[in-house]
Amino acid sequence: MLKTPYLLFLGDAPDQLAAKVAQGIKDWRPEHCVGQLRLEGCKANLGLKDMTVEEARAAGAETLVVGAANRGGVISSSWMATLTAAAEAGMDIASGLHNRLTAQKPLVEAAEKAGTQLFDVRVPQEEYPIADGKKRAGKRCLAVGTDCSVGKMYTALAMEREMRQRGMKATFRATGQTGILITGSGVPLDAVVADFMAGAVEKLTPDNDADHWDLIEGQGSLFHPSFSGVTMALIHGGQPDSLVLCHEPTRTHMRGLPHYGLPSLEALRDLALVTAQIVNPDVTVTGISVNTAALSAEEAKACLEEIESRMGLPTIDPFRDGAGRLVDALS
Amino acid sequence: MLKTPYLLFLGDAPDQLAAKVAQGIKDWRPEHCVGQLRLEGCKANLGLKDMTVEEARAAGAETLVVGAANRGGVISSSWMATLTAAAEAGMDIASGLHNRLTAQKPLVEAAEKAGTQLFDVRVPQEEYPIADGKKRAGKRCLAVGTDCSVGKMYTALAMEREMRQRGMKATFRATGQTGILITGSGVPLDAVVADFMAGAVEKLTPDNDADHWDLIEGQGSLFHPSFSGVTMALIHGGQPDSLVLCHEPTRTHMRGLPHYGLPSLEALRDLALVTAQIVNPDVTVTGISVNTAALSAEEAKACLEEIESRMGLPTIDPFRDGAGRLVDALS
Repeated sequence: MLKTPYLLFLGDAPDQLAAKVAQGIKDWRPEHCVGQLRLEGCKANLGLKDMTVEEARAAGAETLVVGAANRGGVISSSWMATLTAAAEAGMDIASGLHNRLTAQKPLVEAAEKAGTQLFDVRVPQEEYPIADGKKRAGKRCLAVGTDCSVGKMYTALAMEREMRQRGMKATFRATGQTGILITGSGVPLDAVVADFMAGAVEKLTPDNDADHWDLIEGQGSLFHPSFSGVTMALIHGGQPDSLVLCHEPTRTHMRGLPHYGLPSLEALRDLALVTAQIVNPDVTVTGISVNTAALSAEEAKACLEEIESRMGLPTIDPFRDGAGRLVDALS
Repeated sequence: MLKTPYLLFLGDAPDQLAAKVAQGIKDWRPEHCVGQLRLEGCKANLGLKDMTVEEARAAGAETLVVGAANRGGVISSSWMATLTAAAEAGMDIASGLHNRLTAQKPLVEAAEKAGTQLFDVRVPQEEYPIADGKKRAGKRCLAVGTDCSVGKMYTALAMEREMRQRGMKATFRATGQTGILITGSGVPLDAVVADFMAGAVEKLTPDNDADHWDLIEGQGSLFHPSFSGVTMALIHGGQPDSLVLCHEPTRTHMRGLPHYGLPSLEALRDLALVTAQIVNPDVTVTGISVNTAALSAEEAKACLEEIESRMGLPTIDPFRDGAGRLVDALS
């Protein structure tokens, strides 16, 4: 569990996209962000107050979050002075990049000396049990996709926000590094050892109040040969009551696999439902979330209407329309 | 890749069942076994020549395989003198037990000094890629089960033996520790990190001659919530041309999960087929393998006939009948 609030470190991000992790934190947990720290040459800007390490600490920052990636997705050597200073100043450091904070010797020494912690959120931080498949109290909604990277995290976060605004009990459950940095906790599922995947998801979504909903971040796709096993473990460990289908209508092939076409939403619905029924016979598909960013407003409207009439399910783009209709469909 | 031939170490196995790994090696790879080594109190016997470490080495043994488990499935301290002597005598040591050979300091020192190797086959020994799902040359057959431990490994090994006896090109591909010890190589799939499961299976079953068959050892079950993700990765990484359904007809609930009933063979056929078609549209279910060990000869015959007429697929118990009809169905 990461300590809040955060100082968002943008490093020397060459453009706004390189700071998308920081952007996600700021979009979904603005209350956790005291400011941003940008190095010389940084081209990203979150519109937060620029702060030095000292200013952020004085403003109460407990954790510096590495919210940017350079080419290669590794911790840059030009960042080390700032990260070390933050550790020395009493802040924990959190990163989702490929190389580890805990492999940077000067940083480890500084953190030890100051009694602060280094969190590599790509690395599982705890032991997970083998799943037992027992029915748990409370409700769970899982986003499943026709492909990877079609908006599953965004959909679950948008539903959580909508539900909280309505005064419902709702918790986004992160299963990837960006989600973990946004919410401060979760399971980096793609780094968990095979035997413990489903158990990790069970632990992430435990017994809860009968009217509480977990909004579980999806991973991969049942139709993506590289990662379908992870998706399967999410479905069986997550024990969903509700499935939301996620889709990107302009994609021409599975992400990273030009030789694989996308499944239809019908095929996704049928396969996700039959696999989820193994752990919860009462599961239903309650809605469809479409990422229409690549379409004009008019095209998006037509696309959503076509899918809604074809599938007979509430179909929205949560970025354009909010997640209200997906939440309505849960009750 | 383990070096053959083996000395099979039975330790102080309290009964024959405790030596089932050694029994498997002796049953399926008798040509790899020079003898057995039993300590005082050992109640198991493979009918191989009893040998000391020195005798086995003189007879050419290259690897001592720990083929027994005590209660708890760990390496027993009473075994250490023998294992250390074997390492000193120039033999590699291989084990599939929970605690690691490489964590036993005296053994590690002896092996280093003698230049011999310690293989913990539960631990992945190499790096695996992320799966790319590309079509590979050669044919693949995967055993999938209504549950865990219903005879998937036995079925694949029996098919390999039958095919080799017919002069066909066939290779059993091990995905669990017993299979790895039997054949000397493979992937301990349940210990592989989630993102690399399917890639590990692709690497295990690479391009091959057009008339070569891989017989891939199954793991878990699509219907077993604890391990279904592993099974899914096997199906998508294995890219099977043929699926053989495996079943144990007297089982009343999923292994380890008394609150889960078993799926029907029809449900297994349908779900395995639709998931396998994602990576190979031409895949077919070619036969059914039933473990009838708990039935009398008459009951077994009736059971197999009933399933065969219901499912319309060749249905055999490879232990009773051999795997001939499953192999016939491949061509």
